[in-house]
Amino acid sequence: MKVSFQGEPGAYSEQAVFNYFGDVETLPCESFDVMFDSVVSGKSDAALAPIENSLAGSIHQNYDLLLRHDLHIVGEYLLRVRHCLIANSGVKKGDIKKVISHPQALGQCAAYLRNLGIKAEQVYDTAGSVKMLKESGALDVAAIASKHAAELYGMQILEEGIEDNAENYTRFLAVGREATVPESDAKTSIVFTLKNVPGSLFKAMSVFALRDIDLTKIESRPLQGKPWEYLFYIDLIGSLQNETVRRALDHLSEYAVMLRVLGSYPRFKE
Amino acid sequence: MKVSFQGEPGAYSEQAVFNYFGDVETLPCESFDVMFDSVVSGKSDAALAPIENSLAGSIHQNYDLLLRHDLHIVGEYLLRVRHCLIANSGVKKGDIKKVISHPQALGQCAAYLRNLGIKAEQVYDTAGSVKMLKESGALDVAAIASKHAAELYGMQILEEGIEDNAENYTRFLAVGREATVPESDAKTSIVFTLKNVPGSLFKAMSVFALRDIDLTKIESRPLQGKPWEYLFYIDLIGSLQNETVRRALDHLSEYAVMLRVLGSYPRFKE
Repeated sequence: MKVSFQGEPGAYSEQAVFNYFGDVETLPCESFDVMFDSVVSGKSDAALAPIENSLAGSIHQNYDLLLRHDLHIVGEYLLRVRHCLIANSGVKKGDIKKVISHPQALGQCAAYLRNLGIKAEQVYDTAGSVKMLKESGALDVAAIASKHAAELYGMQILEEGIEDNAENYTRFLAVGREATVPESDAKTSIVFTLKNVPGSLFKAMSVFALRDIDLTKIESRPLQGKPWEYLFYIDLIGSLQNETVRRALDHLSEYAVMLRVLGSYPRFKE
Repeated sequence: MKVSFQGEPGAYSEQAVFNYFGDVETLPCESFDVMFDSVVSGKSDAALAPIENSLAGSIHQNYDLLLRHDLHIVGEYLLRVRHCLIANSGVKKGDIKKVISHPQALGQCAAYLRNLGIKAEQVYDTAGSVKMLKESGALDVAAIASKHAAELYGMQILEEGIEDNAENYTRFLAVGREATVPESDAKTSIVFTLKNVPGSLFKAMSVFALRDIDLTKIESRPLQGKPWEYLFYIDLIGSLQNETVRRALDHLSEYAVMLRVLGSYPRFKE
């Protein structure tokens, strides 16, 4: 089995692939676009896409890509993220003038960097920032990435666990070409649009509330070409095989202009 | 009057400041953090913060900064965004290997860049990307920014209106130290948290639906330190001076763990 992830070898996403799928072959992709395309074209069997971080929020691009591609969510995984401040050997913390990393990682260490008075510069990847730093040999720059990335590139760890908040988890969605619908202990992800009239979202949510269906996430994204109208993404507890869930979605289809099930998949268990 | 904006001179945000506030002095800020701080400290009288784009979605950092600072939303403005592909003189479109700009601008031209097969690289600012390109003198790089920025730096415009969708508007919020509550034709922005129990968001939205109050936006952001719990930001039509709006917020306070009014301000009119 071959699984795509976004980033360089050593990325948090690659670690998540090994934790979730086990000992599989990985395909590093330079962007989320390329990652989704690799599954569609059959270059890989699945992809593991980060969808939300407990500190920095949703990764909206992957919401957009779920909509744009005809793929299915087949699972979810939660990764505990522990960031390291990484430098070339011999460098001390006081030497650091600038830190490079992925915007998401920089955002998760924003208070730590503000306190140190270090400037942040965005690069495309966490593990990639370590690779760039090693190649440049810079002695006044640090990178933020995983311990695994530091080890992979033979770099020095100046400090471990520099994220602003220990409750730092990233939720990943496994995406494949074939839908899988578990019988129980499932989550279902849907996306829909509504008529732009007062109270429409309230009505849409009533189909779940009236049936005691628990919603774990609601996310809105702009509807292209219709300023200030939205796509709504909802995650709910329950399987598509469940009669109550099916009735709720049937009820929602009375209000929704568009409604699509992105996947029904086993809930993550530690 | 002095008004802060994020970016270099020539930024879309600076244009929005002039359109909204008229002929005022501007204070360019290197980040949204610095921009908010400049109003708090009295270095400027107000700031104009981009909060949402009709193609790329919300600028979540500014939602977080509204919460972190004790400032008030005092107005809103809609800017029609028209991106230009900008290069040093003598450069032709076929020479371009890479495009630099702010992630938001790159996102808004993503399909255009995909079609041209040009690589995108993120920099901190649209107008800043033009400044960087001029300084580097590179002949295989282009920047994406406003016509105004191209003119300000004396650069060549290769193509105008390269955004993927003509319906490209950015909504800005004017932020100041003193609250202003208009009597009519107002919007009110609030932020709240709820107990993490099934149906809680549905109940919260019922306080508006039951009173026929129109919601124009709902946005969720992660609650720091409580993974998979959320802050909800809602914009509603109506003034805080309106009795029905006040009753709805009073009703919401029965369910909300935290509730704060970010501002009640005149609606944008073309």
